[in-house]
Amino acid sequence: MTSDKPSPRPLKVALLGCGVVGSDVARLLTQDADELARRIGAPVELVGIAVRRPGRERELDLPAELFTTDAKALVSRGDLDVVVEVIGGIEPARDLILTALEHGASVVTANKALLAEDGATLYEAAAKAERDLFYEAAVAGAIPIVRPLRESLAGDRVTRVLGIVNGTTNFILDAMTSTGADFAEALEEAQALGYAEADPTADVEGFDAAAKAAILASLAFHTRVTMDDVHREGISDVTAAHVASAAERGSVVKLLAICEQHETPDGPAVSARVHPAMIPDDHPLASVRGAFNAVFVESESAGQLMFYGPGAGGAPTASAVLGDLVTVARNRVDGVFGPGESSHAQLEVLGMGRTRTAYHISLDVADRPGVLAAVAQAFAEQEVSIRTVHQEGHGDDATLVVVTHVADDAALSATVARLRDLDMVRGVSSVMRVEGGR
Amino acid sequence: MTSDKPSPRPLKVALLGCGVVGSDVARLLTQDADELARRIGAPVELVGIAVRRPGRERELDLPAELFTTDAKALVSRGDLDVVVEVIGGIEPARDLILTALEHGASVVTANKALLAEDGATLYEAAAKAERDLFYEAAVAGAIPIVRPLRESLAGDRVTRVLGIVNGTTNFILDAMTSTGADFAEALEEAQALGYAEADPTADVEGFDAAAKAAILASLAFHTRVTMDDVHREGISDVTAAHVASAAERGSVVKLLAICEQHETPDGPAVSARVHPAMIPDDHPLASVRGAFNAVFVESESAGQLMFYGPGAGGAPTASAVLGDLVTVARNRVDGVFGPGESSHAQLEVLGMGRTRTAYHISLDVADRPGVLAAVAQAFAEQEVSIRTVHQEGHGDDATLVVVTHVADDAALSATVARLRDLDMVRGVSSVMRVEGGR
Repeated sequence: MTSDKPSPRPLKVALLGCGVVGSDVARLLTQDADELARRIGAPVELVGIAVRRPGRERELDLPAELFTTDAKALVSRGDLDVVVEVIGGIEPARDLILTALEHGASVVTANKALLAEDGATLYEAAAKAERDLFYEAAVAGAIPIVRPLRESLAGDRVTRVLGIVNGTTNFILDAMTSTGADFAEALEEAQALGYAEADPTADVEGFDAAAKAAILASLAFHTRVTMDDVHREGISDVTAAHVASAAERGSVVKLLAICEQHETPDGPAVSARVHPAMIPDDHPLASVRGAFNAVFVESESAGQLMFYGPGAGGAPTASAVLGDLVTVARNRVDGVFGPGESSHAQLEVLGMGRTRTAYHISLDVADRPGVLAAVAQAFAEQEVSIRTVHQEGHGDDATLVVVTHVADDAALSATVARLRDLDMVRGVSSVMRVEGGR
Repeated sequence: MTSDKPSPRPLKVALLGCGVVGSDVARLLTQDADELARRIGAPVELVGIAVRRPGRERELDLPAELFTTDAKALVSRGDLDVVVEVIGGIEPARDLILTALEHGASVVTANKALLAEDGATLYEAAAKAERDLFYEAAVAGAIPIVRPLRESLAGDRVTRVLGIVNGTTNFILDAMTSTGADFAEALEEAQALGYAEADPTADVEGFDAAAKAAILASLAFHTRVTMDDVHREGISDVTAAHVASAAERGSVVKLLAICEQHETPDGPAVSARVHPAMIPDDHPLASVRGAFNAVFVESESAGQLMFYGPGAGGAPTASAVLGDLVTVARNRVDGVFGPGESSHAQLEVLGMGRTRTAYHISLDVADRPGVLAAVAQAFAEQEVSIRTVHQEGHGDDATLVVVTHVADDAALSATVARLRDLDMVRGVSSVMRVEGGR
């Protein structure tokens, strides 16, 4: 097998970025060099590390001459086999990856934002250069999900992906569920424990999860899906009351990335969205606690699969990067490359209004004859079918909780708009989607 | 990328076995031929199906001339690219796989028994022939676990694998947990529902799980581990009382396949075992219900990962076979082959006595002064540390429930033997290992 082949020459690897993930990659590359050489079939040589501030003390025991601030010169050397990009963000990461590919290197990246915004440019550059572009670490950290979607399920048809792909928001929602805290308190706790950043926008408003949803949908459905195609709602409007309502119906609130295949009159289409939703306690995703991530995949033949693990952190992300590096390096030794972008299906990407979901709606109403009839009529006008209705309280403090069957999101939101206009409805106190039902 | 390359020629595939899994493989191969051709980069042609009884009516709409009873002649044709083996068992499967490799075909197999008994012969034959031998379907059905262990974690060090890898026993234990039924009742229910066979020995006595444990340990630790190296205990002695005891301490009883890396005075070593164990309710494996499977992997960098899904069934297993087939076929198009056996570590495989575990022990005792002292002394003699002791009942009907800290299994079982000899102990009513603690 490959590991028995004589090694033609050491493989030259350059690392872009030496923060939390990059330091761990450098450490694993140097500390386990012999083991990696056996697994790859050739020794690996770390030839350069691009950093912004080379003077900064690093905990790595590496020669100072490895470090450079000139990333562009590093990726333009022309003798690199693999470039590992863990800088993040759009630029200069995109320019450096494109330059690396042009100069003959394969690329391993953890850059979800770039892949979600402009993956097509990268995939096309890799295809043109006949080089690998691998990115297991970009989605759900150490959890192997890109490789299973690209390879294990290559003979199957994925119909749906439901993911908890942001650890910060899962930590916050889990804290709200277990302690009854409201969003602000739980966010503060997450910040104190280092699970949320000082500016938590990218996480709590769902931007991070939306980038991952775009990548997952692209992989699952062989269709280019970008960040702009993803409907996005964060968790900052989730209240302790939502969480309590969910608990009453045996559910929990999770921020989900949902990628689905749809059958429309015009043929198959896909959608991708990120929003908080109630899912039943017995759904495998319901028990994903703390900052863990999990991706639940439904496919025609394999049925329901779930992949669970740490979604972030230096060492887990570095593990995913190293796994890719071994595959890409082995491909270099063999003179081949792995599966590239698969976008042959190019299905239509539906807007949020055409996705199918169910709503959990709480209405403040006066407990008077005719209220339920008026409310039911608002649903019927949009052809939305009601699954359950519960009334809590009575007199002027009554609350009507309605859970619908699945319908087009546009019909559901039009129903909510109509309810707000009804004289008998004092207010719509909460609306949340319901997912994961069977 | 590969899918854009002109196809040199169709790839010839032969199928050995056309039972539940084989029929689904044949169906997917023919029904999705265009999609597979796009993913592989060349069309796939099913050129023969070896069956035992060709006259049998099959639900597949395939030409009669594809079927043959002469499997040996089929695999000896010399023009096959891939042979898919789903016959199962040792012979003639082994002979047919070896013959296929000798004649230049790559092999995809779902045969756990053969891999666990004599994998080395197959891996060596594949290496010699420079052909692929892929077997994702052999462990945990459709759940991608072989590929993640072989590739995604190739830059990491796996320290422990805990798997629920037999759906029949998980269904029975889950039924016992949810209904309080005893083993015989739950087995009967499983048989009535088709989850257990008329002769359930292979499942309930842990043979099936032990084969999978051998394969998982080999992959995780780069060491040859065979069926004979795996300590095996089934679930036929698990009682409703065990399940109730587990529930009292917030745990559930599961049949686990446990593969571990150990540090010994002589260096690193590994172990593999299958036995029922109590695991805490908040462990991700505890919520694996019914006939589902899950594999929990602990590694140095990635941390804790879990892979969950259907562990058996025609369509899920066929999905795993097809995923392998796409990879192997793509490798044929590229003229390369994938990762082979990785047994370079060749660590010592420890016997059960040297593995580390904890025990939950129930003793029938007389509630008299000195009982606890005598019992505690028996543990101390073997240097086994006690974690908790509870006494239930009193007088002549007292039960002492002892949970230990982790110790060598040999010391724990010697302690149990000693307890049985104590005058003050009327009997050891149950012993079960405890796993999954943190």
